[in-house]
Amino acid sequence: MTLGPNAALIGQPDGRRRLATPALVIDLDALMRNIEAMAEFGRRHGLALRPHAKTHKSADIGRLQMAAGAVGLCCAKLGEAEALCDAGLAAPLLITSPVIGQAALDRLAALRRRCDLSVVVDSLAGLDALAEALAGQETTVFVDLDPGQHRTGAASAAAVLALTGALQRHAHLTFGGLQFFSGPSQHIEDFDARSGDIAARTAYLSSVIEALRRDGPAPPVVTGGGTGTHHFDAELGVLTELQVGSYAFMDDQYLACQLYPEAERTFEGALFIDSRVISNNHEGMVTVDAGLKASTGSPHPPQIAAGAPAGSRYEYRGDEHGAVLLPPGAAAPALGAVITLRTPHCDPTVNLYDVYHVVRGDELVAIWPVTARGRSA
Amino acid sequence: MTLGPNAALIGQPDGRRRLATPALVIDLDALMRNIEAMAEFGRRHGLALRPHAKTHKSADIGRLQMAAGAVGLCCAKLGEAEALCDAGLAAPLLITSPVIGQAALDRLAALRRRCDLSVVVDSLAGLDALAEALAGQETTVFVDLDPGQHRTGAASAAAVLALTGALQRHAHLTFGGLQFFSGPSQHIEDFDARSGDIAARTAYLSSVIEALRRDGPAPPVVTGGGTGTHHFDAELGVLTELQVGSYAFMDDQYLACQLYPEAERTFEGALFIDSRVISNNHEGMVTVDAGLKASTGSPHPPQIAAGAPAGSRYEYRGDEHGAVLLPPGAAAPALGAVITLRTPHCDPTVNLYDVYHVVRGDELVAIWPVTARGRSA
Repeated sequence: MTLGPNAALIGQPDGRRRLATPALVIDLDALMRNIEAMAEFGRRHGLALRPHAKTHKSADIGRLQMAAGAVGLCCAKLGEAEALCDAGLAAPLLITSPVIGQAALDRLAALRRRCDLSVVVDSLAGLDALAEALAGQETTVFVDLDPGQHRTGAASAAAVLALTGALQRHAHLTFGGLQFFSGPSQHIEDFDARSGDIAARTAYLSSVIEALRRDGPAPPVVTGGGTGTHHFDAELGVLTELQVGSYAFMDDQYLACQLYPEAERTFEGALFIDSRVISNNHEGMVTVDAGLKASTGSPHPPQIAAGAPAGSRYEYRGDEHGAVLLPPGAAAPALGAVITLRTPHCDPTVNLYDVYHVVRGDELVAIWPVTARGRSA
Repeated sequence: MTLGPNAALIGQPDGRRRLATPALVIDLDALMRNIEAMAEFGRRHGLALRPHAKTHKSADIGRLQMAAGAVGLCCAKLGEAEALCDAGLAAPLLITSPVIGQAALDRLAALRRRCDLSVVVDSLAGLDALAEALAGQETTVFVDLDPGQHRTGAASAAAVLALTGALQRHAHLTFGGLQFFSGPSQHIEDFDARSGDIAARTAYLSSVIEALRRDGPAPPVVTGGGTGTHHFDAELGVLTELQVGSYAFMDDQYLACQLYPEAERTFEGALFIDSRVISNNHEGMVTVDAGLKASTGSPHPPQIAAGAPAGSRYEYRGDEHGAVLLPPGAAAPALGAVITLRTPHCDPTVNLYDVYHVVRGDELVAIWPVTARGRSA
């Protein structure tokens, strides 16, 4: 994978100022603090961490998370796991969506031969096909439980029991435990509303675990949760393992969420989009080279982090451009000036870029590939 | 560039049914009909075509457009032009946004040495820097005129005259003419409202051309327009060259627009997203493997083209998944079934994918790289 037009700037003390823009930028020190803060949180609460690689899709960041004590990484899709494995990432990988269809199962079986891989199931038909595809390969299988949002997951305790029962009939498959991920809960901005939402859903999870303890195999691991709920997940004490992802970068959606009761902010924005002023012919605004192909915030555009007068506001101006609207009387940034945007929603924004530009201040420290970019299949 | 997990399916009569999903799919015959229909439109109206490659970012499709008689292609950004040139596309390329900043100008000068390249300017400062960077290289320069939307472009006839005057002082730069692209006009759904909008803006363009004829060099070429306005552009007779892009694929936004007074539809949807059912545990819906990383329609999700009962509706369910909501009483598609989505907005959706899967019916005819994917810088 090429490192792009900025490769020659690596090691340059002012490399960041000269980047070809729009450019995806990581504040390395902020990233490291975020990774360590979540690792410390896990240790303090006795929770294993299996960070979700769907956020960063990066073998480099995955290695940093493993070095900080993670037990493995999650991948949303088979292609993501293939890409991270191809990049030499030595980490146990859990694919968190059901793998369905013969072609995908063939690829899964091939990947299992060269990677410490575990998977989820949410249907008997899916389990049967999986068992056949993985014949002869010992594999850990988690049962995905629907938290009530009907995206994926078994729909009831009875359905889970049917799956664990079927699992026991396949000697090469081991029941790893339950997966319980409530995606939309993560983004509820109000602290108490988010707390109440995840508490109610977790009560349901507890009832399913109770049924398993009574009538089936108790789940060795209960994996799930996310950045938005990890405080509550720890407090509720039902999950044994956290699948947090966005904490590494944070984004405007999560920065708008109060994550802890103390209102302290443990995690900080580490991911930015550097854009450049390419037109300034109109009073009260400038045009930058970052539009809908540079971030996926629509209808909520990115916030401005630096480079424009206080009170300036970014708006999308189509696929290729953005407008920075200036407050009355403010001096316009010059043609060529860099304006730094915060990330509105980190996961799909990362997926737009081939590389991260890793910076300390203005120094371009490294360029990291977005290893699994576009690997949604 | 790798062709991805579906490469072995090329030439297979049922290859499309077995694609790793989500997959970006081109209906080859529909694409060819669209390309020929626009070529015929240009011939009929005496308009040159310079199709915009920002839509498809594909050297293969660019070659088809050139073979159909295009005079060249447009690129939104320098990186797009670099990628198409690197892929061996032999076509004159016009970069339709100002190229600003020393690093970008250095790349531009390097690209000019190996590519038939023209550029736009919208400021004297930008022109001075451009002239210096391209010293010794004869290059055609268009003056970009703001159609009133304040994205890019010179803001008045006087500003255009200042630019053409300055251009004449640089012997290596040739005035190519005016560029006039009214992006938001393209997407006005109502026929009469779109007609009125572009007519008023084009009247302003005419007044600027008149000022140029009187006080400066007349523009040899007037380039601009798009799929949404091309009928009016031809009728108004001011543009000499069309920068149409989306006509090749169409998308839900353009399919919702009446393009001609006869309400006939000359262009047809040629671009699709094939998704697959990966979970079906809940009454009245199934979950597919295509979410916000598979199309960029939010808040307007893709429409369903095939594979689900009539009256079904797609909704985003986060970054990785979508829900297909079934009408009351409809039988749910089976686990593993393929559901084909239309493209909500083709340009940024294409930019999510590394490859196109080119099909005729169920046969996978070819896989084409999205040559300039992610090359926004």
